Order: sequence, then structure tokens, then C-alpha cells
Amino acid sequence: MRYGLIGKFTAQPGKREELAAILLQAAELLQASQGCIHYVIGTTDEPDAVWVTEVWTDKAAHAVSLEPENVRALVARAAPLIASVSDRTELQVLGGKGL
Amino acid sequence: MRYGLIGKFTAQPGKREELAAILLQAAELLQASQGCIHYVIGTTDEPDAVWVTEVWTDKAAHAVSLEPENVRALVARAAPLIASVSDRTELQVLGGKGL
Repeated sequence: MRYGLIGKFTAQPGKREELAAILLQAAELLQASQGCIHYVIGTTDEPDAVWVTEVWTDKAAHAVSLEPENVRALVARAAPLIASVSDRTELQVLGGKGL
Repeated sequence: MRYGLIGKFTAQPGKREELAAILLQAAELLQASQGCIHYVIGTTDEPDAVWVTEVWTDKAAHAVSLEPENVRALVARAAPLIASVSDRTELQVLGGKGL
């Protein structure tokens, strides 16, 4: 079953733009991923928050996506910019538009 | 700017499948909507929860989508099945894959 993931990253103060730029680079890498259907980056009125909503063909595809060297390099660059991760929600995707 | 919306609907006990079916019908109606980019329905391990993640061309497109008679009819059918709505998050969508 398609696998959805919602999560909120709270950046270190003042680091939201830098973190969002890295997440947008991750989305660029994922353009080539067959398993990734959606990877959407957004912000709210909360100063340091960046949200990511994802849909994958299945949970295994998401796990595999984290393994390549270029993805690990992005994760390593993002990690020091992140104060906390919260609101993580894993979804069994039933269907919808845009899948 | 593209507009994202995340929300959790908690169904009345035992009504999740019925509510999800109505939301999937809403997604079918939205196939014809130029303003709707994503409308994804998913469930979690929480017994009565249904999540919807949406991306629209802009916030106005989302508002307009609620006006047609057939959409209002679905909203009217869904309303008595919903115990609460929570975790509503409005996003300014910066970009990503699948848009």
C-alpha cells in the first residue's frame, strides 16, 4: 500500500531558509526515484517550521531512498540546522488526486 | 503561491470507513478541478482517524472548490460522521516533487 509521511522540522533560529533549501535539493534528487510519488516542502506562519508531506509507493521505497551517498550527504548537512522533529504521522494512503 | 492543507478528521466511532469513502468521492470530483494539485486520503493506526493532505494552486482555488452543489452535498453527508477536526495546518508550498 502507498505510504504517506507528514513531519515538521523546527530549524535552529534563523536557519529555516537554509534548511528548506536543503529539503528542496532532496526533492530534486527524488525526481529520479520511482518510489517517490510526492515530496512537498512548505512553511507556516511559525517562524522556524518547515513541513514535509510525502507519498511513496510503499514504506520500503521510503527506507531505500535514504541509503544513497548523495542523500546521506544532504541529511548530514541538514542535521545541524534542525532543532527538533515533531508531528510525525505515517499514513496508509487510501487514494486521492495527484497520485 | 501554492497552498497546502493538512488536517485530521476523527470519525464517530465505527464510521471511519464511511467517512473515508466520502472523502474518496470528493477526490473523484476534484479530478476535474484545475486548482487542485493533490488531495490525498490516508489512515493511521488510530482507529477513527482519517487524514487529508492537499495542495492547491493557491488559497483562493481551495475556497472556490467548496462552492459547487455536488461538493456541498458531500460535505453534508460527511458532517454527521465527523466527531472532530484537528491538526489543521496551512502551508505556503515552497516546492518539491509531484507538483
